Parts: sequence; C-alpha cells; structure tokens
Amino acid sequence: MLIVQKFGGSSVANAERIRNVAGIIAENYSFGHDMVVVLSAQGDTTDELLDKAAELNAAPSQRELDMLLATGEQQSIALMAMCLEAMGLPAVSLTGWQAGIRTNADHGLARIRRVDPERLRRELDKKQIVLVAGFQGVNKFDDYTTLGRGGSDTTAVALAAALHADRCQIFTDVEGVYTADPRKVPGARKLEEITYDEMLELASMGAQVLMNRSVQMAKRYGVELEVLSSLVRAPGTKVKEVTRTMEEMKITGIAKDENVARLTAADVADKPGVAFRLLHTLSKAGVNVDMIIQANGKDGANDISFVVAQDHAGKAYDALMARRDAIGFDHISMDENIAKVSVVGAGMMSSSNIAAEVFEAFSDEHINIQMITTSEIKISCVIDAASADRAVKAIHRRLFETA
Amino acid sequence: MLIVQKFGGSSVANAERIRNVAGIIAENYSFGHDMVVVLSAQGDTTDELLDKAAELNAAPSQRELDMLLATGEQQSIALMAMCLEAMGLPAVSLTGWQAGIRTNADHGLARIRRVDPERLRRELDKKQIVLVAGFQGVNKFDDYTTLGRGGSDTTAVALAAALHADRCQIFTDVEGVYTADPRKVPGARKLEEITYDEMLELASMGAQVLMNRSVQMAKRYGVELEVLSSLVRAPGTKVKEVTRTMEEMKITGIAKDENVARLTAADVADKPGVAFRLLHTLSKAGVNVDMIIQANGKDGANDISFVVAQDHAGKAYDALMARRDAIGFDHISMDENIAKVSVVGAGMMSSSNIAAEVFEAFSDEHINIQMITTSEIKISCVIDAASADRAVKAIHRRLFETA
Repeated sequence: MLIVQKFGGSSVANAERIRNVAGIIAENYSFGHDMVVVLSAQGDTTDELLDKAAELNAAPSQRELDMLLATGEQQSIALMAMCLEAMGLPAVSLTGWQAGIRTNADHGLARIRRVDPERLRRELDKKQIVLVAGFQGVNKFDDYTTLGRGGSDTTAVALAAALHADRCQIFTDVEGVYTADPRKVPGARKLEEITYDEMLELASMGAQVLMNRSVQMAKRYGVELEVLSSLVRAPGTKVKEVTRTMEEMKITGIAKDENVARLTAADVADKPGVAFRLLHTLSKAGVNVDMIIQANGKDGANDISFVVAQDHAGKAYDALMARRDAIGFDHISMDENIAKVSVVGAGMMSSSNIAAEVFEAFSDEHINIQMITTSEIKISCVIDAASADRAVKAIHRRLFETA
Repeated sequence: MLIVQKFGGSSVANAERIRNVAGIIAENYSFGHDMVVVLSAQGDTTDELLDKAAELNAAPSQRELDMLLATGEQQSIALMAMCLEAMGLPAVSLTGWQAGIRTNADHGLARIRRVDPERLRRELDKKQIVLVAGFQGVNKFDDYTTLGRGGSDTTAVALAAALHADRCQIFTDVEGVYTADPRKVPGARKLEEITYDEMLELASMGAQVLMNRSVQMAKRYGVELEVLSSLVRAPGTKVKEVTRTMEEMKITGIAKDENVARLTAADVADKPGVAFRLLHTLSKAGVNVDMIIQANGKDGANDISFVVAQDHAGKAYDALMARRDAIGFDHISMDENIAKVSVVGAGMMSSSNIAAEVFEAFSDEHINIQMITTSEIKISCVIDAASADRAVKAIHRRLFETA
C-alpha cells in the first residue's frame, strides 16, 4: 500500500514532536507500506522569517518572500530524515522541485500545474521513506514558489493523486471533523465520514480543519482523505465522494464564521443594473461577495446589503466609494459585529424540515436572523456576533443531541 | 565591468549589517558595474541548525546535513534581495543550483565540477544585481551538496572564473592580509599585494583570511582576488600571480599555527621501509603529515617524529598503534603543546640570508627549534606553544620593523 501522510507545523515544532511523528511514520513503514510524507515548516519558523524580512523591507517582492519561506519546510524534511536515520530507517528528503512539483508563476499563491513523479518513484522503489517539503514548488523559470495557506495539504493531495496513493492522511492538532467546534459545544461528535462537498461547505464556513483548495483537488482526482491527530492515536474523519452514512445522517456539522462583515449601500438609485455594477466593482477589486440581499428602504429607495470576509471590508468600502456616483447610491454603512452560522449536510436535500428546525432554534433563543442563504447542502444565517456561540449550541442540541 | 563580491556570515549577521553590505553593493552598481554577490549564512545560523540536528541524530548523514545547512545561505540571499529592493534596486536571488553550480557527490566537502552560467548571464543582461547562495551546489542527482569550510569563497572564485569577471572581491572582517596577526603584533602591516603561492603558504600556516581551495582555484583560472573589509572602507590586499613588489619585498608574512600536534614513533626498527610504511598507514587513515624528521635515539635506535593537524592526532595515533608490529616501532608519544611559526615570501628564493635571520631571532629569544622545514618561499619551525607569540613578534621586528 502507498500512503501519503502530511504533518503540519505544530506536529514538527520541536525535537520531541519530530520524534513522535517519526514514530507514526516508522510504524506504517514497518507494515511494509510505501511512505511519502509531506511536512510543513516547524512551528514559528515562518513567522520568524517574516519578522526578519519586515526589518529590511515593509513590502518585499513575493518572489523573494517565497525564496525565504521555502527554507522552513526544507529544514523540517532534513531534520525528520535525520530522526528516521537515527532509528535505523532509510529516509531521503526532497524539496518541492526535487519532488517534481511544478507550479504556475503566481508567487505566494501558486497553483500546482503538474507533478513529475519520476524521482519519487525511484526513491520508493529503493524502499526509501520519502520526505517532501510541503507548501512549495518551482515555476517554469525554476524559481521557488509557495502555495499559500493550507499549501502543505495541497502538496499532499497532489502527490497522492500523481502517485495513485491508496491513502492520504492529513495529520493535524484536532482528531477529525466534528459536528461543531468541540471547544465550544460540549456535545460535539467526531464524524466518521464526510463528503467532499460537505467538507467544502464547512471549510468555507470557518471550520479550519482543511483548506478548500486541497479538498477541491481531492474531489477532482478522487483522492480519499483522512483527517486525524498526530498526538492522539485514534481513527479520524474520512473525506470522500459518497459516505455510507449519508442517508441516515441529514446534517454533518455546524460552523461559525466570525471573519465576516456586512456592508450596506444605502439609498440605491431606483434604476436597472445597480446591483450588477456594485458586484462588478467588488469583483474587480478582488473582493468575494458571500451573501447579498436587496431590501426596500424608507421612501421607496432600496438598500443592498452584502457579506464579505472581514479582512476585505476596507478594500470593498474604498472600491465602492470611489465609484459611488457611477454605481448610484448615497452612502455605505458597515457592521463587523456579526457572525455567520451555517448548518451543512448532504442529507439536507432530501429533507425539507431541517430549515424549519434551524429557524425554530433561533427563535427559541430570541436570536434575530439578519440574512439567510441556502444551498442544497447548507443553510447560512447572519446574526449578531454576541449570539453566535449560543446559536451553535442551540442548533446542535436540536439536531444532534435529541432522540 | 563585471564584479563578483563575496560577504561572509558576520557581514550579514543582522539587519544592520545587511543594510551596510547593501550599501556597498549599491555603490558599485551605481557606477554601472554588473554585480554578482555571493553570500554566506547569517552569523550563527549554521551552528543553530547543527544544534537542531544534534538533538535528533548524533551522526546524521552528510546528505541530510547538506539539505539542512543549504537553507542558511538561501535565507541570506533572499533577505539581501529584499533589502536592495527596499532601496529601489533590481535584485534577484539564486540558490546554488539555480546559479548553475554543479558539484561532485562528495556531500559536506563537494568539489565544484562546473558552472553553467546561462541563468546568471540572463539576469545580468537584465541589469539585475544577482545574489548567489555560497557554499552550495547540486550533484548529478540534483541533490544539494555543500562545499565545506571556506566554501563561499570557492563559490565566488568559481563564478568569477565562469563569468570572466573583472574583479573578485572577498569581503571579510579583516582589512586584508597582514605581515603578521595584527591583534598580536602591533607593528604588523597590511600588504598591498601578495602572490597566490604566498597566500597558499600563509593559509596553510594558519592565517585564516582565505582558504586554500579558493586560492588554488583562483590561481588555476587566473582570477585576481582582493581581500577587504566590509566594515572599513579601505583598499584591501590583492592576490595575484606576480606582484609588483615582489623584488623589493623578500618576505610577505609571518604566521602561527597552533592546530598542530607532534607524534613520535619511538625505537623504530633499524630496517628499510619503516618510514614508508608509517606514512602509508597515515595516508590510508586520511591523515596529512606536514613535517617529518628522523632522529637517532639512544642505543642506535631511531625515532620518527612528524606533525599533523591537532584534530587528526587521535586518528593518527590509533591508525599507527593498530599496525605497530607491521610498521616496526615500540611506542608513540604525542605532544600537542607545540606551535608552528612560518615565514613566507616569494622573495625568499633570491635571498639566502632570510633563514639565517629567522634562526637568529629564535636564538636571541632563547627559543628552542624542535623541527624545521623549508620550501622555496617558506620556512616553518616547530617550537613550544608558549613561545609562539614571542617568536612571531621577534621575527617580525627583525624582518619588517628595522631599517
């Protein structure tokens, strides 16, 4: 069996953690498996390097940042190889380019174009444990690129796809995907399985277990993922196309996203195309709009409200104000004191009463819903931030903890 | 004019030092020169990485050590590029493999096989300041290799040779090559020029300004070197084939080497080939013998004394004792409490009285000479370690400070 494993920065933060991970790798290798292991930079390495950069240049070029940051993962793989060597195991470390990871030229947020797996195959044929630097590749000029947030997960999925791995295990500091944040909701349950689409919705909604890019790539190439803990030996959560439990379990999880802001363009002119011009302006400014609602204001004028990531709120505001007259509105008001609570589940499409139960839970708690969007597998509600944890608990109780 | 500059680890140890070096580079670039700059790892980076490695493996493979250590120079070049960018200058950093530095597979002590200068040429054509990671390359398997001590100097010389650079400047923390160690000998003078051969002798004798490998390579490819300080703006010392002052100045420098040990094989059998077997044994053990002397012991038996680097003394002892009967001696005695004082100068060959002056200086100071070797441009004497500084001062006074 060929297994791809990925361990994040906290899993390799110091010598003790590295030895712990080496133990997991060694155990799997001892079963006769072919092992490819993707590692992130140790703990705070990336932040330390960014601090050094900031001392010299407030806005360094992304090419040189990639050159600098790529050293973090390179150190991790070399150290892990040494640790495995000390245990008497054959190990070889490979940087992104050595492992054949070719990307586009979008420094800092590069996309993997292809994986040339020859070197990887050659090392596996020699029964070497292959340690690959996550988060990085090279573009067609042979310049270092990095893949952006969650990049090491993406590396692992890309390698699993290129090598037709039998398993792709993403080790993190949580034990798997839960029905809700277990630190906040005591009754939260670990899911045995979840579909790619559910995982995508949960990830978009603020559940930080896996980044969307890696789940999308896993879905596209049919790579079955497993999310599990590097510290607790327990089965994790499998992420796959169709889950066994899909029919029985209507809901897989409840997530809360506090990185949201609502902007309202007030007194929008009553003429066609305003919403289009507004969205077009935001799109050109690189702002993704998540929810949008058009409401009748007083005096027959309209308001258009929409939700964006909080760290894009200022950019959105500036872009719209610069084109105020062309778009046609009076002013913009902004509210960052909101949260988005989402209920996700592939079983929702076959059951109409989930939405009713969710709204009733809000109502019982006297929480006012400001905006609602739904998809086939998701209901999202914007509420005031202070009520968010209470809302998640109430919905969780109603949907998971009864019966 | 194409200039290759090299800055060592202390010259880029922190943000302030990096800015200082960037100033030197910027000044040369502003004169219209093409600039290739080789950097070492920052200050203590290499030691910190070695500490991390030691926590995991007391004897890690050299391949993985090279993988780990190569990150240090990569960080330096990225940081320097950012600093130059902040000054509004076009800069691009290249790791060893990106700069086309191909080595043999001797990890940790690799030799440069060739430099493929295409990428370097391309960047120079774009008027980029090119920052190259010193000390590293890749072998034919595309694995990272490091060049061993003084490796960054070797990188600089190799690039200067491959690019037919007009100048190759080695910036260090001293202002040049001196007639003696200026911290120990107040009258020591900075040399304007020195020949490759003189530099080689001085370097072998413990003057740590340039490593032999880089000087040998510079001599072979006719690369004129300049050694100068990154902190003090002053002309340094030029290292070249023939110096203008060669005729006038008989002696270029006096050096002291304390990393030496004398071993004596006592009561060597009085039969042919003993010295050969002894040297052959040492050579097979990887021990370089520097000086050797055969003396009549008591009772007609012979002693053979020789000098090795102090960190090879134990290895030499073990290798000889393991073959004691085959070689034919009674026992080995060892003395690490010695030093080698050397007088170097290309003018020495045309002047017979230098040796006499040196010996007289020792005699005046009542210092006993234990061993002597001479070459056309060098006289080396082994004396007890405690007298070494006094000996250097006395010789310096006699040869440089009179008249």
